[in-house]
Amino acid sequence: MSESMSPAASARVGFLQTHPRFGEVERNLESAARRVAEAPPFELLVLPELFSTGYLFRDRPEALEFGESVDGPTVRALREWAASRGGSIVAGFAERDGGRLFNSAALAEPDGTVRVYRKVHLFDRENFIFDPGDRPFEAWDVETAGGVVRVGVMVCFDWVYPESARSLALLGAEVILHPSNLVLPHCQEAMRTRCLENRVWAVTANRTAEDDRGDLRLEFTGRSQIVAPVGKVITRAPADGECVVVEEVDLAVARDKKITERNEIFGGRRPDAYSG
Amino acid sequence: MSESMSPAASARVGFLQTHPRFGEVERNLESAARRVAEAPPFELLVLPELFSTGYLFRDRPEALEFGESVDGPTVRALREWAASRGGSIVAGFAERDGGRLFNSAALAEPDGTVRVYRKVHLFDRENFIFDPGDRPFEAWDVETAGGVVRVGVMVCFDWVYPESARSLALLGAEVILHPSNLVLPHCQEAMRTRCLENRVWAVTANRTAEDDRGDLRLEFTGRSQIVAPVGKVITRAPADGECVVVEEVDLAVARDKKITERNEIFGGRRPDAYSG
Repeated sequence: MSESMSPAASARVGFLQTHPRFGEVERNLESAARRVAEAPPFELLVLPELFSTGYLFRDRPEALEFGESVDGPTVRALREWAASRGGSIVAGFAERDGGRLFNSAALAEPDGTVRVYRKVHLFDRENFIFDPGDRPFEAWDVETAGGVVRVGVMVCFDWVYPESARSLALLGAEVILHPSNLVLPHCQEAMRTRCLENRVWAVTANRTAEDDRGDLRLEFTGRSQIVAPVGKVITRAPADGECVVVEEVDLAVARDKKITERNEIFGGRRPDAYSG
Repeated sequence: MSESMSPAASARVGFLQTHPRFGEVERNLESAARRVAEAPPFELLVLPELFSTGYLFRDRPEALEFGESVDGPTVRALREWAASRGGSIVAGFAERDGGRLFNSAALAEPDGTVRVYRKVHLFDRENFIFDPGDRPFEAWDVETAGGVVRVGVMVCFDWVYPESARSLALLGAEVILHPSNLVLPHCQEAMRTRCLENRVWAVTANRTAEDDRGDLRLEFTGRSQIVAPVGKVITRAPADGECVVVEEVDLAVARDKKITERNEIFGGRRPDAYSG
């Protein structure tokens, strides 16, 4: 971030809700490329967790075969799309780093910058497929034509831990970018609380349909959404079908941490009274 | 707690939703006494925040006049009711301690034991009326005929800080007792997230109607409720009217912190990755 850049007043943020086919990486990338190309102009676009591979790996060896470095086809595609559209893109991918495998999300900026978040809270069977994220939550400054937007990334099940969004917000994130493959019914409503308690925007990009691996099967819940710092869902996709939605959001709302005239939400925290 | 007592399998927990008249302490205590006497049998009954005084103090000097010690009429009444009904009662009161004034909640047990929580996160105008709570969140063991129930108390606006319920749950609370005077519309839904993310029961006792002090006026939202550890509202009162509801709740559900077969919610926390 150049020192001269000032905070953006607003940003166009959105999600691409997809229906990946398990294991068909080339097909999934081509399909997403078409939809990204057709999207309205954006500064930040979020795609689902593991959008290029599908979700339901049979075991760790299979997942390792699909693992890619940040120089692999998935992140290379994100960089190309970000450059061609002039907006940053966040999406999930299986990140292989030597013998380790993370459920990661890459943020690709139009200038080629790539930053990676490694999912901290692994869900259910992910615990024997992936390694847990080995780095703390971080917030990042993204330069846009309108100024700097400070963002934080968390992936899917991270939502259930209030510490995830709280950490990102305390680090200054104004918008939480949330690639997901949701199977439980609670997240979409709970994200209203996450936004309200932190006074941040959140963009959850979920996938639809099912991964059917014969004896293993999971159905995903769609309903990707954008939630405002006041806890209001400003747009929500259907449960089924691919779609792309972009909304212009007011970032001043996310920088104003006053929940009442006399309650600044972070200043009012009382670590001296907390456990854990 | 005697060492021989084992955890209770279940408990009858409930709320009394009231409509206090501002400043009419004797009248409010008499009215609550009648309703407590008529309540179904309970182990834990929650009454609203500041139920005996009303909420909308004009200023700190006025609130100090209404302040009571734990030997004052409000807590004395709670002790009498707990003894006569054979169940513990939690309710809010303005606690005067020398020159200090806290927005407190007392837990009175049938054997005369009284414990006090002093509200940590003060809401809006409370910031110039009360002193903020000077002690950490605590969980307490309550003996019942069926065994021990571990409870935690938080008051009204504490809900907006995820650290409140998290602290109580990490200290072992199975049931969160939540005396409230809610004016914002979000809490009732957000408590579903609080329960889900901590796998605890929660009983929110709210008041109804308004405090009208002429130039100052506030309307309260009723809708007292009991929420299960799976995030489900099992009972919710109407927005208006006094009522008392008691439900028998399964405490094993709140002691099982597994949100999936491979996700123990507290063991899965990652303080190494968190900020704040």
